[in-house]
Order: sequence, then structure tokens, then C-alpha cells
Amino acid sequence: MTAETGKMTVGFIGLGIMGQYMAGHILDVGHVLRVFNRSRHKAEALVDRGAVWCDNLGDVAAECDVVISIVGYPADVEEIYLSPGGILDRARDGAILIDMTTSSPDLARRIADRAAAQGLSALDAPVSGGEGGAKAAALAIMVGGDPDAFAAARPLFEILGKTVSHMGPAGSGQHTKMANQIAIASTMVGVCECLAYAKAAGLSQAATLDVVGTGAASSFLLKGLGPKIVAEDFSPGFFIHHFVKDMSIALEEAEAMQLSLPGLALARKLYRQLVEEGFGEEGTQALIRAYAGIVGGNHAA
Amino acid sequence: MTAETGKMTVGFIGLGIMGQYMAGHILDVGHVLRVFNRSRHKAEALVDRGAVWCDNLGDVAAECDVVISIVGYPADVEEIYLSPGGILDRARDGAILIDMTTSSPDLARRIADRAAAQGLSALDAPVSGGEGGAKAAALAIMVGGDPDAFAAARPLFEILGKTVSHMGPAGSGQHTKMANQIAIASTMVGVCECLAYAKAAGLSQAATLDVVGTGAASSFLLKGLGPKIVAEDFSPGFFIHHFVKDMSIALEEAEAMQLSLPGLALARKLYRQLVEEGFGEEGTQALIRAYAGIVGGNHAA
Repeated sequence: MTAETGKMTVGFIGLGIMGQYMAGHILDVGHVLRVFNRSRHKAEALVDRGAVWCDNLGDVAAECDVVISIVGYPADVEEIYLSPGGILDRARDGAILIDMTTSSPDLARRIADRAAAQGLSALDAPVSGGEGGAKAAALAIMVGGDPDAFAAARPLFEILGKTVSHMGPAGSGQHTKMANQIAIASTMVGVCECLAYAKAAGLSQAATLDVVGTGAASSFLLKGLGPKIVAEDFSPGFFIHHFVKDMSIALEEAEAMQLSLPGLALARKLYRQLVEEGFGEEGTQALIRAYAGIVGGNHAA
Repeated sequence: MTAETGKMTVGFIGLGIMGQYMAGHILDVGHVLRVFNRSRHKAEALVDRGAVWCDNLGDVAAECDVVISIVGYPADVEEIYLSPGGILDRARDGAILIDMTTSSPDLARRIADRAAAQGLSALDAPVSGGEGGAKAAALAIMVGGDPDAFAAARPLFEILGKTVSHMGPAGSGQHTKMANQIAIASTMVGVCECLAYAKAAGLSQAATLDVVGTGAASSFLLKGLGPKIVAEDFSPGFFIHHFVKDMSIALEEAEAMQLSLPGLALARKLYRQLVEEGFGEEGTQALIRAYAGIVGGNHAA
């Protein structure tokens, strides 16, 4: 880092929809940005704006003050951090490593432990807010790990998000994201069952949403996804197959804590059924499909 | 009704917490109010303010332009409307009968059918908003039944509530309330599982609520009841045993429509367990007790 300017060299690994926006914000404030992505073409717009392309992720890690990753699955996180030639093998002394993928708390702790053993700091910092939040730099960022590393990384987080919370030691960011996904899982079940019932009972689903949205049953999902369900618009804001991944991580962690979460288990069962039926690339509101005959107007009532 | 003044004689049956406030608002605007309640002492404050006590509900019905009821269970509704000497036996020609109890859509249709055969009108008009909404005349009122009777009763509804919606034929008000309770049921499961997980994972429940409450997992219940769960305050805003009644009505109706609602079935199972354990008089937020070891600080993690 250049002390006079606060400018850092930041590595960014994973340039999906979210990652491209997030990396762009970091570039915009003047940090040096080194990027790597499995598919190079997703880096092109950033390279045109001044980002430095690296041919492998080890080369990103080797030159950076901070390395940020946001990839798909825990297996991808494990590979980029822990495999030979990966981030931990190549990171330079004192670097801060930040994984923003929604991933396993247990894996986050393993990465943080190995980082600490090497004199590095690793933070787990998953986000919520989706594509819109990434684009508008309005993400909620839930961070686990060493408080000093958090304090050092905070200015970077504030470039990307509106709410930045340090939740505790390594893994706590992921645990918080899991708690978030757990609340979403059963709330989606409630929204879909409400609308499935309304349709079967011959009510106007839209009028039902209007009434139900004024009171105790109201939720961000009811108001945001309810109208899409009524319109049978299943385009993805958040992919079902990603949500199933998240629910599986949460269920595994809960099991390890001897905590039974039957609502979450039910939601995963319903969503897994949809994946099996070929709807994994639809948005989470397509859960309404689990209520036989409700979609397409041919309901049983 | 006196045409010049718009003043009516209104009967009110059922002076529980909600009913007392609602009847008071009707009295306040100057209508003649005739009241009956199983326990007479609950009518005293209203009688002091000018309401007319009737020794039985038939005597209420015999003298009123409009009869409003809000009692406990569908069995109570059936008794006051359909038993000999009850409301339908004694109501005068042209009267409008309004049941505001959360009750069965099927029973609402039966009452409306019998009323119509006698030249009377019956509306089902359950509410949401609870004690606070009743006190502030800010209820949401969901109405089913004949549109002309609804139009005639609308000024009365507007004395009691902020949102008044005609949802369709007889039973539609109850169906809408059921849709509302269905959304609440699984949302409560989500809120409790979120907080149970947070505690088991060693997170601050309060900090988790702060973060989760900013995004897609946010809901009226998370924000309203979440802090009570964190404080282990299980005082009733809405009694568990009333909620179990509502969920049972909804499940019966859904079954009759060949609609499977596994989230609702799960919520009822968890809440019924709490009733069996003696917690039926607690508020719905006590669902957190279903997550073994989370309440009282002795969790398994």
C-alpha cells in the first residue's frame, strides 16, 4: 500500500455478474486492480478500464495487498485458496484475503487457520443484496475473522456495500449469511403457500397480496416476489440451484451443532424437487411450482 | 336506520379485547349500540357509555339494522348464528349480519346461504391488526359476501378499520384471512430457525437481526417479534392456541381443495407441540421453544 494515497493493489478473483460490478467499483476509486477469472472474456470490460489481467490466480495473489474472491461453490473456494499454487501458496506477507462467496463456515475457519499459520489474515465476508446491490454498491456485507484485519479491510468493504457488520471470529460472516438464507427459505414457503391457497380458493391473488401486504404477514419477499409469482414470471433474481447450495451448507452446519431445522429441511426438499424437474435456472419465486396445479391456471379447486 | 342522520341500531356480540374496542368506536360515532356477551362484566364499561345491555343474543338481533359478532371459535359462530333462538332466528327483515371472527369459510357460506333464504344478508369480515389495530381503528378488514350488503356496511367497516377490501362471495373474507395466516405460519418458522441457528452458531442474535433485517429476509414478524424472541419475552400479542385454530381451519379447507401445504402442516405440528407442553397462552413468538435448548441459554452448540 502507498501510505500517502491509501491506494492499494487489490486482486479480484471471480468475475461473475456480482464480481464484475464489485471489481469495477474498486477500480473506480483508483486502486490498482489485478484480475483473474476462469473465463477470460468476462474480464475484458475491466481490462479496458485499466485492470491488469493475470494468467492464473497465483499471479494475482503474489502481487496484492488484498485479495478478494467471489466464486460459485465451496469446492471452488477450497480450490482457489488451498490447492498448490493457489492463493495461500502465493500470497505475499501481510496480505489480507477476503472470500465473499456464500460458502461454508467450516471451510472459512480452515482457510483462516492456515492463513494465520502463514502470517496472513483471511476474512469471510459474504454479501446479500444480489445483482442490484452489487451494481449500486449497496450490498450488506457480513464479516467474520480477525478484528484488526476487518478494520484494515473496512474501507474496501465500504466501497462495495451500505451495511458492513463484523459478526465475530472466522466463519461468523458465513454463519450470518446462513441465518439470512434460513429466514428466506421458510418465508418463501409461506409466500408461495399463501398465494397457492388464494388461487385455489378462487380469490384474486393480486388483491390477496394487497391485503396481506398491509399487516403481520408482510415481508420483503411477499412484496418483491409475490407480484412475479402472480404474473408467473420465473426469471432469476437468485437462481434456485444457488439457493439449494446455501440451504445444504446451513443444514450441514446445523446438524454439526445438533440443531434440527425442519422448516429449512422442508424448503430444501421442495426446491430440490424443482431442480430435479429442470427448474434450477429459474428464480427462487418458482417455488410456487411445488404447489400442484397452481401454475398455468389448471388448479384442482 | 334513520335516513336523515345515517344513525343505525347496531348489535354487537362478543366483547373480548378486540370487540370492546370495536364496539366503543361504533358508540363513539353516535349509533345506537345493543350488546351481549357471555360474561356480562365485560359489557359494563360500554353500558356506562350508553350501550344497551341485552339478556340474550336473540334480543340483540331482534332490534338491529346491523348485527356484528366477534367471538372465539367456529363452534361459537355456529352456535350464535344457527342455533334456535340465535341471530338468524331472531334477526329482523333486511338486517345485515356481519361475523368478524376468524372462522371457517365453509361455515361462512352456510350462514350466508341460510340468511339469503330468509331475505337477510350475511357478510364474513375477519380482521387483522390485533389489539393495537382494534384500539386505533386501524384494522385490515377482509370481506366476503353480497356486494350490495358490503356497500351498505362499508361505512361501519370504515369506523373500525383502515383497509377495507371486498374479496368476493361469501367465505372470501375468511379465505383471505386464511391466506394471511398461512403466510405468517411459515414466516414465523423462518424467523425462529434464523435466530435458533444464530444462537447455536455463537452469533449475537441482536446483531444478526440487524443485518438480516436490512435485506431479502426482512419481514414484519422478524422486525416485530424478533427482538421479543431475543429478549425471551413470550407475552401474548396473539395467542398460540388461537393461531393453532386458524391453521387447522386453513389445513381443512386446503385439503377440501386437494391442495397440499406442507409448510403450514409443519408449522401447526410445531405449535401443537407447544400447546401440549402448556405454552398455548403464550404469544406466537414462543415458537422459538420448538428449537431444543435455544431458550434459556443452554443450547447444544
